[in-house]
Amino acid sequence: MVNEKNVVESRLTGPVRVVGVGLLGTSIALGLRARGVDVILSDASPTNVSIAEDYGAGRRATDGDEPQIVVVCVPPDVTASVIVRELSAYPRAVVTDVASVKKPVLDAVIAAGGDVTRYVGSHPLAGRERGGPMAGRADLFVGRPWVVAGHPAISYQTAAAVDDLILDLGATLVEMTAAEHDASVALVSHVPQVVSSVLAQRLVEAPESAVNLAGQGLRDVTRIAASDPELWVQILGANAEPVVEVLSAFRDDLDRFIGALSAPEVPGARREIAEGLAAGNAGVARIPGKHGLDKRYAQLVVMVDDAPGELARLFAEVGEEGVNLEDLRLEHSPGAPIGLAELSVLPEVSGRLAEALAARGWRIAG
Amino acid sequence: MVNEKNVVESRLTGPVRVVGVGLLGTSIALGLRARGVDVILSDASPTNVSIAEDYGAGRRATDGDEPQIVVVCVPPDVTASVIVRELSAYPRAVVTDVASVKKPVLDAVIAAGGDVTRYVGSHPLAGRERGGPMAGRADLFVGRPWVVAGHPAISYQTAAAVDDLILDLGATLVEMTAAEHDASVALVSHVPQVVSSVLAQRLVEAPESAVNLAGQGLRDVTRIAASDPELWVQILGANAEPVVEVLSAFRDDLDRFIGALSAPEVPGARREIAEGLAAGNAGVARIPGKHGLDKRYAQLVVMVDDAPGELARLFAEVGEEGVNLEDLRLEHSPGAPIGLAELSVLPEVSGRLAEALAARGWRIAG
Repeated sequence: MVNEKNVVESRLTGPVRVVGVGLLGTSIALGLRARGVDVILSDASPTNVSIAEDYGAGRRATDGDEPQIVVVCVPPDVTASVIVRELSAYPRAVVTDVASVKKPVLDAVIAAGGDVTRYVGSHPLAGRERGGPMAGRADLFVGRPWVVAGHPAISYQTAAAVDDLILDLGATLVEMTAAEHDASVALVSHVPQVVSSVLAQRLVEAPESAVNLAGQGLRDVTRIAASDPELWVQILGANAEPVVEVLSAFRDDLDRFIGALSAPEVPGARREIAEGLAAGNAGVARIPGKHGLDKRYAQLVVMVDDAPGELARLFAEVGEEGVNLEDLRLEHSPGAPIGLAELSVLPEVSGRLAEALAARGWRIAG
Repeated sequence: MVNEKNVVESRLTGPVRVVGVGLLGTSIALGLRARGVDVILSDASPTNVSIAEDYGAGRRATDGDEPQIVVVCVPPDVTASVIVRELSAYPRAVVTDVASVKKPVLDAVIAAGGDVTRYVGSHPLAGRERGGPMAGRADLFVGRPWVVAGHPAISYQTAAAVDDLILDLGATLVEMTAAEHDASVALVSHVPQVVSSVLAQRLVEAPESAVNLAGQGLRDVTRIAASDPELWVQILGANAEPVVEVLSAFRDDLDRFIGALSAPEVPGARREIAEGLAAGNAGVARIPGKHGLDKRYAQLVVMVDDAPGELARLFAEVGEEGVNLEDLRLEHSPGAPIGLAELSVLPEVSGRLAEALAARGWRIAG
């Protein structure tokens, strides 16, 4: 559902055919429908097409379809063959895909003799924990980076249609080569996935009493270890070389750290540990966007009973006080009857809000 | 500030002396004051004592003090010597500490001839990103595990005073030996810290274009890499042996994973990768408490303009619809003018809420 007032005319001039209506395909289709684009849905599963159609994501394919763009949104291991098939089925269409690796796909399309003057790969850096058409949403890509991996065989003019599609969906266009893309996602996505999964393996055999001491740190580090193994085996397999390169560098750093920590009394060992931790500080500081405690804001921690309506009441009352929430974080302790809401507000209103909430009976500290 | 109606009589019978008024010491002091306990504040820094006193955390020490309990809340590398000093200064007090390693502290106190019939170590699994007395809050320990590391030299009756203090602060009492504790926190806290820090090091030299593709996964995995190196060098140094043991097992798992990924076409390699990822699923599923998507609830994603008052308005309107928020998560994209609020609600009200919010002009999907 997209609010009427937000419908802006599409930059596209023809229909878009979406092949594979899982999370990404359905989200692309919904986003384009919201712009009034004619969207054609295709999937190996007729059930998925029906669901996506019922969702308002578009219409079924017909014989006379002449799509301007085909977007291939199928699992990584069949992406290249579907691209080649679509290139020959629709000889006037520009074809793109959304697989999370780009060079192996381009190489395979070239190797299969696909017409790469009409193919340009792309990759939206967006997703969520749930998959399938039911998880699709029109706004999935808003404000997210979307890489277009240009190559010499496609003209600027031809590829521009894919840019239009990306901008239609509200994403931020990022241009890089397929190899640059694959190295980048190895670093910021695939290696963190492996590290999180391998760390979480340590918990399988751990005593219950140890796991019960887990705090937010462990939860954060291992959250993505809950990802779908079937999908990730394909992604990692397809991007194995760049991932192994970054993983090996990580392993070398780790070995050095273990070495220093194995003999912490040796001169220089503690300095090496401290430098490793400080380098971690420097690395995490480079990640853009709102995360952690934003230094522009003051934080106010409010205790909220884990009872119906309490959180809503808190936010309603913050609103009544005329204070704008800039960000917030919730913290739950296992089994605790109480949660903590950390509100980020402008420093100049923080004192007043604390007093006002306390006067309304909220328990506050920090 | 603790709401008047929440003051419950303390289980303690005498004053509590808090040595070291950083985040933990001040929080303990504030929590005990809220129960009406006479709290005596001590710190190597007179400024810190003044701040904590101004905060309402307790009073300065006087010559005639006879504390029932002394709580040592100083940095790990001086904890043992301060415990020994306090044991002799207050020969009728029970002494505990809150350092995040327990066996080296106990061993050092015994080695220095401290009277361990009156010492029992403890460790509250609580903390936050900011330190210092100003970050202290009375409710820091509510619902959090607090380990008491009993040993044969202290009687049950003597140690019970520390249990009372922990229960006064609303924490959940957990009993284990010092060695069990140290192995447990190595697994659930210290190793995740090292892994996060060492992974974040990879970002230091990374191209800007790669770092800009970072999503929530990388943010989560590296969040604790922003922790204080000075404190962590002490913690890791003090718990080196258990940490190295878990880290080495992690490194072995990682080596196996790298081996499989280095030759993904070798028979069995993909199965090994998939099994590693599936074991990660199993591990993360063992962590207790609310985290990730709670399957008991339905999720509703609402787009929120990054403008003053918008988030507060959303929550106010959810409240007006009479719907209880069970949990929520905020998602911000770098530079995006829009954030996403994922509301968890009971499945039976989710459809109605989606319609109501859409009718109020909110953009909804999922």
